[in-house]
Amino acid sequence: MIVLTQSFFMNLAAQERHELKVPDIEGYKTLKCDFHIHTVFSDGLVWPSVRVGEAYLEGLDAIAITDHIEYRPHKKDIDAKLGRSFEIAEQATKEADVLVIRGSEITRSMPPGHFNAIFLANNDSLDKKDWRDAFKAAKAQNAFIFWNHPGWASQQPDSTKWWPEHTELYNAGCMNGIEVANGKEYYPEALQWALDKKLTMLGNSDIHVPINNEYDFAKGEHRTMTFVFAKERSIEGIRDALLNRRTVVYAGNKIIGERKYLKALFENAIEVTNVVKSGKNIKITFKNKSDLTFELLKTEHNPDVVYFRDYTIKPNTTETVTVKLENGTKEGNVNFEITNLVVEPNHGLSYTYKVMAK
Amino acid sequence: MIVLTQSFFMNLAAQERHELKVPDIEGYKTLKCDFHIHTVFSDGLVWPSVRVGEAYLEGLDAIAITDHIEYRPHKKDIDAKLGRSFEIAEQATKEADVLVIRGSEITRSMPPGHFNAIFLANNDSLDKKDWRDAFKAAKAQNAFIFWNHPGWASQQPDSTKWWPEHTELYNAGCMNGIEVANGKEYYPEALQWALDKKLTMLGNSDIHVPINNEYDFAKGEHRTMTFVFAKERSIEGIRDALLNRRTVVYAGNKIIGERKYLKALFENAIEVTNVVKSGKNIKITFKNKSDLTFELLKTEHNPDVVYFRDYTIKPNTTETVTVKLENGTKEGNVNFEITNLVVEPNHGLSYTYKVMAK
Amino acid sequence: MIVLTQSFFMNLAAQERHELKVPDIEGYKTLKCDFHIHTVFSDGLVWPSVRVGEAYLEGLDAIAITDHIEYRPHKKDIDAKLGRSFEIAEQATKEADVLVIRGSEITRSMPPGHFNAIFLANNDSLDKKDWRDAFKAAKAQNAFIFWNHPGWASQQPDSTKWWPEHTELYNAGCMNGIEVANGKEYYPEALQWALDKKLTMLGNSDIHVPINNEYDFAKGEHRTMTFVFAKERSIEGIRDALLNRRTVVYAGNKIIGERKYLKALFENAIEVTNVVKSGKNIKITFKNKSDLTFELLKTEHNPDVVYFRDYTIKPNTTETVTVKLENGTKEGNVNFEITNLVVEPNHGLSYTYKVMAK
Amino acid sequence: MIVLTQSFFMNLAAQERHELKVPDIEGYKTLKCDFHIHTVFSDGLVWPSVRVGEAYLEGLDAIAITDHIEYRPHKKDIDAKLGRSFEIAEQATKEADVLVIRGSEITRSMPPGHFNAIFLANNDSLDKKDWRDAFKAAKAQNAFIFWNHPGWASQQPDSTKWWPEHTELYNAGCMNGIEVANGKEYYPEALQWALDKKLTMLGNSDIHVPINNEYDFAKGEHRTMTFVFAKERSIEGIRDALLNRRTVVYAGNKIIGERKYLKALFENAIEVTNVVKSGKNIKITFKNKSDLTFELLKTEHNPDVVYFRDYTIKPNTTETVTVKLENGTKEGNVNFEITNLVVEPNHGLSYTYKVMAK
Repeated sequence: MIVLTQSFFMNLAAQERHELKVPDIEGYKTLKCDFHIHTVFSDGLVWPSVRVGEAYLEGLDAIAITDHIEYRPHKKDIDAKLGRSFEIAEQATKEADVLVIRGSEITRSMPPGHFNAIFLANNDSLDKKDWRDAFKAAKAQNAFIFWNHPGWASQQPDSTKWWPEHTELYNAGCMNGIEVANGKEYYPEALQWALDKKLTMLGNSDIHVPINNEYDFAKGEHRTMTFVFAKERSIEGIRDALLNRRTVVYAGNKIIGERKYLKALFENAIEVTNVVKSGKNIKITFKNKSDLTFELLKTEHNPDVVYFRDYTIKPNTTETVTVKLENGTKEGNVNFEITNLVVEPNHGLSYTYKVMAK
Repeated sequence: MIVLTQSFFMNLAAQERHELKVPDIEGYKTLKCDFHIHTVFSDGLVWPSVRVGEAYLEGLDAIAITDHIEYRPHKKDIDAKLGRSFEIAEQATKEADVLVIRGSEITRSMPPGHFNAIFLANNDSLDKKDWRDAFKAAKAQNAFIFWNHPGWASQQPDSTKWWPEHTELYNAGCMNGIEVANGKEYYPEALQWALDKKLTMLGNSDIHVPINNEYDFAKGEHRTMTFVFAKERSIEGIRDALLNRRTVVYAGNKIIGERKYLKALFENAIEVTNVVKSGKNIKITFKNKSDLTFELLKTEHNPDVVYFRDYTIKPNTTETVTVKLENGTKEGNVNFEITNLVVEPNHGLSYTYKVMAK
Repeated sequence: MIVLTQSFFMNLAAQERHELKVPDIEGYKTLKCDFHIHTVFSDGLVWPSVRVGEAYLEGLDAIAITDHIEYRPHKKDIDAKLGRSFEIAEQATKEADVLVIRGSEITRSMPPGHFNAIFLANNDSLDKKDWRDAFKAAKAQNAFIFWNHPGWASQQPDSTKWWPEHTELYNAGCMNGIEVANGKEYYPEALQWALDKKLTMLGNSDIHVPINNEYDFAKGEHRTMTFVFAKERSIEGIRDALLNRRTVVYAGNKIIGERKYLKALFENAIEVTNVVKSGKNIKITFKNKSDLTFELLKTEHNPDVVYFRDYTIKPNTTETVTVKLENGTKEGNVNFEITNLVVEPNHGLSYTYKVMAK
Repeated sequence: MIVLTQSFFMNLAAQERHELKVPDIEGYKTLKCDFHIHTVFSDGLVWPSVRVGEAYLEGLDAIAITDHIEYRPHKKDIDAKLGRSFEIAEQATKEADVLVIRGSEITRSMPPGHFNAIFLANNDSLDKKDWRDAFKAAKAQNAFIFWNHPGWASQQPDSTKWWPEHTELYNAGCMNGIEVANGKEYYPEALQWALDKKLTMLGNSDIHVPINNEYDFAKGEHRTMTFVFAKERSIEGIRDALLNRRTVVYAGNKIIGERKYLKALFENAIEVTNVVKSGKNIKITFKNKSDLTFELLKTEHNPDVVYFRDYTIKPNTTETVTVKLENGTKEGNVNFEITNLVVEPNHGLSYTYKVMAK
């Protein structure tokens, strides 16, 4: 049959969209974004419109198309100017409500390695011999620039190192953010650097193949992505949020980011729907209104406040937990760490829920 | 990250191959083939190597790359000669054991509509203004030529018609086969024509998008394909089988084809592993060693032979059926139709299993 | 560990409920019900509370517990009065919002075969030697009585027959309804009888094993059930609906019932969200807001109104269909049959959608 | 319909068995076993035959039925002697090839908590008022006795403690093994005790509900189980292996046990199928022939031997890894920890693979 370019969306139409449920937080909409994506125009393996369709079906709000500048192995067959993949993807948004951001991947050996520049107006000015010139050109466009996969084994074989060149870029305002997770990899060193140096945290798929070949959605997997807390659902809203470091990273079952955002996500995801007190028992029923999982581990606490040792709250469930106040205790604190809400390397978010006897 | 062209197969390596279990039949290997496939080089949406990877993961033996000659909407960006997609796909077979056949889709308005020519040596000679010349050029190369999706609504809006031009092509030896199924569509008229005119029956995916966007493998779906009964697993073996009409079509849960092949498939898929007779009861235990489903419906029979009214044999299961011989009957026939083994429009394969009392 | 009886619901809590989306229709709530269910108290294999948990997780509103009166193979170990399984199931509803109806299965050889009596106040009075007395006792309680699996091969080996005893029961007001589908079986004869004799149509699971052993929910399967159009979500509301034949049957991808109800379901499931006219083309975008599938097949029509030949509308999708008005036609009818909305044996619902040029 | 007790297996027959692929090791068959299972005869929620069917479908070799002695909440309705559930389950093995072991759960408050005694000849003698008498009775029967869920929060609210009573039992030969994992919980303290005190390590499901309500097989989950290295596939073979501590525990993606067994499993699961050397590059292709996952993490190594930082080997895949020998190195060691092969708390199996240049 003949299939028009836009026809990817005919198929799209016939597929069920997965609305990824992540709560908004006070004052901001939570947008689901992937800022690192390839197509056949560099070394990816799908046409740019496919990326829009995939994002739509997975419930994403925005993607950046970031084909390599310096690495285009299909060049013999595909003769197009830089940024052409963005144009095709943007056309496709007529049929699927996804925001598409123009980007490029500056692709250099280490140091400084690979960086994405997004919110570009034009891609060509970044095509320079010297990498310093490429960064200058990106900065001249007010691009948002971030370090990709800082712990990629091909460039950092034994450990994730910060090189002098990164200090140089950072000081020059050419490093606004850093990938704390890329695809199935998570870089704890990058998390620490983001905290220390006030870099925006990003998590992206860096997808090259058709997305279904890397993530098994039937098993509940999701692509690595960034939750962006934006004042509005627009490209401008995303840029503002990135510049102000209002992001957290969603990779596997981990959500990685600043304490205040993770706390807000948790509190907006979980609603206590009922508390029943009888004698020393307090039965707390709550609902997880989100598609997120939370893994709780008991921390230091008054031994007369008796409760679970560890507890997993699955997505979209209603559960009941019993707390006992022993030896005449009248009130107490249920203290726990949410181990998969990562606030620094190897540390989950600490949380306290107060209980009181009748 | 940088991903080399062959890297699709790095991902491939990390995915589990589904070995599609279909029995061989007497004297022939059963090869699973898809002879109608598109890439970005015409109006498909993936790079050719992806098609090899998909086929490998689904357990196929062979595919034909059949980009349109006359319809290339990506031409502005992809400037390559006809057949380039085949070359790239063939390169990819170094890393995945799939046979790739060079083909082209002759893409004309109705009549005569769309046809595939496969086993080409060169694609360029088919690029002619007049469709008759394109067919002549294909025949001159000894191509195997078949009519695609004869009931496609865009060209045959109300019914599936055979036009005088098809008679012309058929008489000129330019129609060796016909698609009895294309994607999720099945054309009963085409089945009847194949039987009457001795055309090779084909079932193909005609895939344009990434295959996972059209088939939900987690739900047990499979792409539409052709089972080819070949003397050897080679391109030459396939060509010989196609020319001698040794094929059946596997589309949804239907297997469509000539009686003798469907009977052989059934008998090689099902093994009776145990028969226990006690009094008038005969308990027959059998194993379905294949990934195929068989749907049985009782047909005319001696009322003293009592058995199921309908019965579904699921893939890879061991089941037991009880037959009763009433009123002193000593032997009898269990007669049924296998409704999803389609031997002509609306008719499944008739089958008889003889039973005898102790 | 020690698990309290109610603990099934601790596990329940940790599982995601599937909210089965079926639209309400004018004046009625659509309740999803299963009126034929077994437990260990007859020949089922699970404790009664499990049935409540399963129903809850699958999004059902109501179930009837209908253990056999005359067939209790676990009697040696389970020594309980009739109706005890209902009591245990009802207890379980404290932790899962499912309505549970008291029933019994009158279990006799053919004729008259098996019948369910539901909305009983007491089960014991149905335990009679003579089957006529059992029916009388059920009727004396104002039970709703229906014929189960009328085409069950064990009792009707070759065809689905209506026996004189059924006429007797029917005339005596002891047959209010009939199972048109039971488990994976559908009985076209029963559909015809229901239409002719004004019997309430029912579809039930007749489940004996754990429900996951019979239905593969990961593959999108659902148990056979009855959609009940009730004035309120209560046992009384269900009884009123059953007595007034406000039901349709949901079995596999078929929805079986009276024309008016199937039409209302279709019209409330599908919302036309956009119509774009340009020249002779009319592009109609619509949304299937339900978990139901609809299979459309073109029927007789003006050949100048050009549209699809067949078309499947999948659950929860937004799709666009193009209709062309050729040869200056200004308006026309898009006529089709919805083949899986079965209004009589082998006939789907006929439907017409009017279109007009700009 | 009427379903005979054995009919669970009619349904069973129609379901595909999952053959769990775990390699045998030198001299032993690897049997997949679950030694802790409940039915309606204590506080479980399914009939005993269901447990045999579930085990069969999941590819298990053996199960123990271990209903509680002291806790039987269904006693009002189910009036049967202890061990009756074992008898029913054993009957069911006529239709499904699973070994069933007679057991009981001694169910006491802490200390000493809950213990299973398996390979019993009779269950009644364990029904004693004083827990010490129950253990004596089990030992008198030569039962294999193990401590269940030693870290169960209900009995050990804040930490997993070894009580003096456990020393007493251990010294008296009344503690042969210990659950290192129970259901979804893993107890690192128990692993350490097993290593120090030469206790047999066990991992069991302790399943009460239908198994599908606790494990999502469609997502690749499996029940917690014990791999038993037996000289033969028989109850006697299992008893011999348990007494000689030839077991490892399979819980989630962890395999927990003694170094020698985990090493043997790894080496029998992974086959190196090809090694290609070119210049300083060594490409190693290997096949994971099992259903197990292995998670590799680089450990201390010669920096001139360059390879992955971490690497996940998925089940049933063929993968290629490249090792580079830099700076003229001629041979070296690829050192890594297999983090999910747990040999002591927080330590995976260390492994070295030697490579040599051409």
